[in-house]
Amino acid sequence: MAVLRASENPIITPKDVAPSLDGFEVVGVFNAGVARYRDEVLLLLRVAERPVQTSPDVVLTAFLDPAQGRIVTASFARSDPDNDFSDPRLIVRHNRSYLTSISHLRLARSNDGIHFTIGEHPAIAAAEVYESFGVEDPRITQIGRTYYVTYVAVSPLGVTTALASTLDFTSFQRHGIIFAPENKDVAFIPEAIDGRYYALHRPHSPLFGRNDMWIAESPDLLCWGRHRHLMGLRDGAWDETRLGAGAPPVRIADGWLEIYHGADRANRYCLGAVLLDAREPWKVIARSAEPIFEPQTEYERAGFFAGVVFTCGLLYQRDTLKIYYGAADTAIGYAELSLYDVLNTLDP
Amino acid sequence: MAVLRASENPIITPKDVAPSLDGFEVVGVFNAGVARYRDEVLLLLRVAERPVQTSPDVVLTAFLDPAQGRIVTASFARSDPDNDFSDPRLIVRHNRSYLTSISHLRLARSNDGIHFTIGEHPAIAAAEVYESFGVEDPRITQIGRTYYVTYVAVSPLGVTTALASTLDFTSFQRHGIIFAPENKDVAFIPEAIDGRYYALHRPHSPLFGRNDMWIAESPDLLCWGRHRHLMGLRDGAWDETRLGAGAPPVRIADGWLEIYHGADRANRYCLGAVLLDAREPWKVIARSAEPIFEPQTEYERAGFFAGVVFTCGLLYQRDTLKIYYGAADTAIGYAELSLYDVLNTLDP
Repeated sequence: MAVLRASENPIITPKDVAPSLDGFEVVGVFNAGVARYRDEVLLLLRVAERPVQTSPDVVLTAFLDPAQGRIVTASFARSDPDNDFSDPRLIVRHNRSYLTSISHLRLARSNDGIHFTIGEHPAIAAAEVYESFGVEDPRITQIGRTYYVTYVAVSPLGVTTALASTLDFTSFQRHGIIFAPENKDVAFIPEAIDGRYYALHRPHSPLFGRNDMWIAESPDLLCWGRHRHLMGLRDGAWDETRLGAGAPPVRIADGWLEIYHGADRANRYCLGAVLLDAREPWKVIARSAEPIFEPQTEYERAGFFAGVVFTCGLLYQRDTLKIYYGAADTAIGYAELSLYDVLNTLDP
Repeated sequence: MAVLRASENPIITPKDVAPSLDGFEVVGVFNAGVARYRDEVLLLLRVAERPVQTSPDVVLTAFLDPAQGRIVTASFARSDPDNDFSDPRLIVRHNRSYLTSISHLRLARSNDGIHFTIGEHPAIAAAEVYESFGVEDPRITQIGRTYYVTYVAVSPLGVTTALASTLDFTSFQRHGIIFAPENKDVAFIPEAIDGRYYALHRPHSPLFGRNDMWIAESPDLLCWGRHRHLMGLRDGAWDETRLGAGAPPVRIADGWLEIYHGADRANRYCLGAVLLDAREPWKVIARSAEPIFEPQTEYERAGFFAGVVFTCGLLYQRDTLKIYYGAADTAIGYAELSLYDVLNTLDP
């Protein structure tokens, strides 16, 4: 499976992004939503920041205090045995979890899809009680003139998915939480089918340990029901421990093509493809037996969370999938895959 | 807080209920939905069954095989160290969970609200892939002429909440999964407010360990969004580890009164009350500092899961709350509480 990575990769790295707050540093820019808007390619970048670390003995992190309406910092001593730092994304203390960084969404613009001008200020930043640990992983879907942005809102209340919309990428309207905890990886099918909208989503079922993909339907994009299990994990495969929607599905002749992520027990994140029925998208027609895209380059195999390629958006043009992807939860890469090659990986 | 238990308590016990399958035994009848229908009080009982146990060395349980469309049995040796029986409701093996019984919903009818005639066959039984471990904990809400039944659908895909409706309690129409895993304890506010329906629900957030109550809104009772956190656990209190809606809320002069359950770290389940704003039910006006109803009698303190009172339904009449409740996950009790007393427990 040929993956054509841009020679400029990674096309955006943390040093390209100014922190949004004094005394903070950007530790990751990854998992971007993608849209065409007028003559430009727009990305909504997930930018992960933390306070500049001042001592090797202490981990400094930050979160929104909703009561005060501002970002506050917190410190965790490395020597304290009650602090668990085993996952680089988390600090676990007394059965409570904190994130080691706080993410916001930042707009980037490009004429050629490779070289981006990055906004100076957040487009969407933590502002609600549901967002106090940050906003993450935007997916953009254009329906009519409106661009809908699903994003993950994280707080001590749980991992939820929220919806915002914009007409111009200048002002964004928030529509609240559309999927209750724990739910993420929400991607909309970009048109109504028989008057109903569909969303891929990834609830988590702790009792039975499942991280599977489901599909829901809606009359209005705001309220979701008729949840159906869409596809499950595959023992021993590259998507054996978790999977979730990546980019919003694209319509091809055979149905809806979804590029999704999966991880194995070593937490190696790859991309695969699944083809859904055009009229009944809760039916899986075929699915990649093997990944279509694996972490192979230096910047994919090393970073904040090593061994990850993860997409929230792509452009589909002339039988080419132009994929923007997070590399090692650190930087953004660009790669092109031929639709023909991808369809050849599908296993009915 | 005076609780007037019926002298006939428990009013329904497992020996009152015929098993639905040959070779099975009823181990629990509890957590019933409640409705008035014509001149009768109707209960939709949760009936938990299992194969008759034939050996002390083996646990026999049963589940629906959706492919075959029938209930199959499975056996787990007590001597096998890979089988974990520490929770009487579960068997955990190789990180997979099974239930020790399978539940269905059974109709019971009464003229006086105390003495019930119990149907011979299930009203709603496991029939879908989402229900293969059974259907549980129905809540009934009458809206217009239609009675809506939310119930918990359990399967290896997760713990979800499904919706059915009926006009006559003879035939039931299924409407699919309305809350994705993991979610239960779903109770509807029984009328639209400014054209929107509201549901209390209890998602589970494993990363942050929360078992809190949320509220969602809907245009049609089928699709749900605008999820808001309603009320959380209280450290050191009777509702410190989990809580969830009990009966559908009842309208009183001051707002919506919800009788909910909470559990402490000893897994002791009590009932409490919370008052929600009449027009903006996502706002909590007041909440019981102490339980209004605790497991105290022999049949509440001993049984399949000891130390539990749990309600899915009540009747509100002449300032009295007539509560049907599951006792120790084994039998059904009936108790009356005065609205005046309950309101006096509320802490603004």
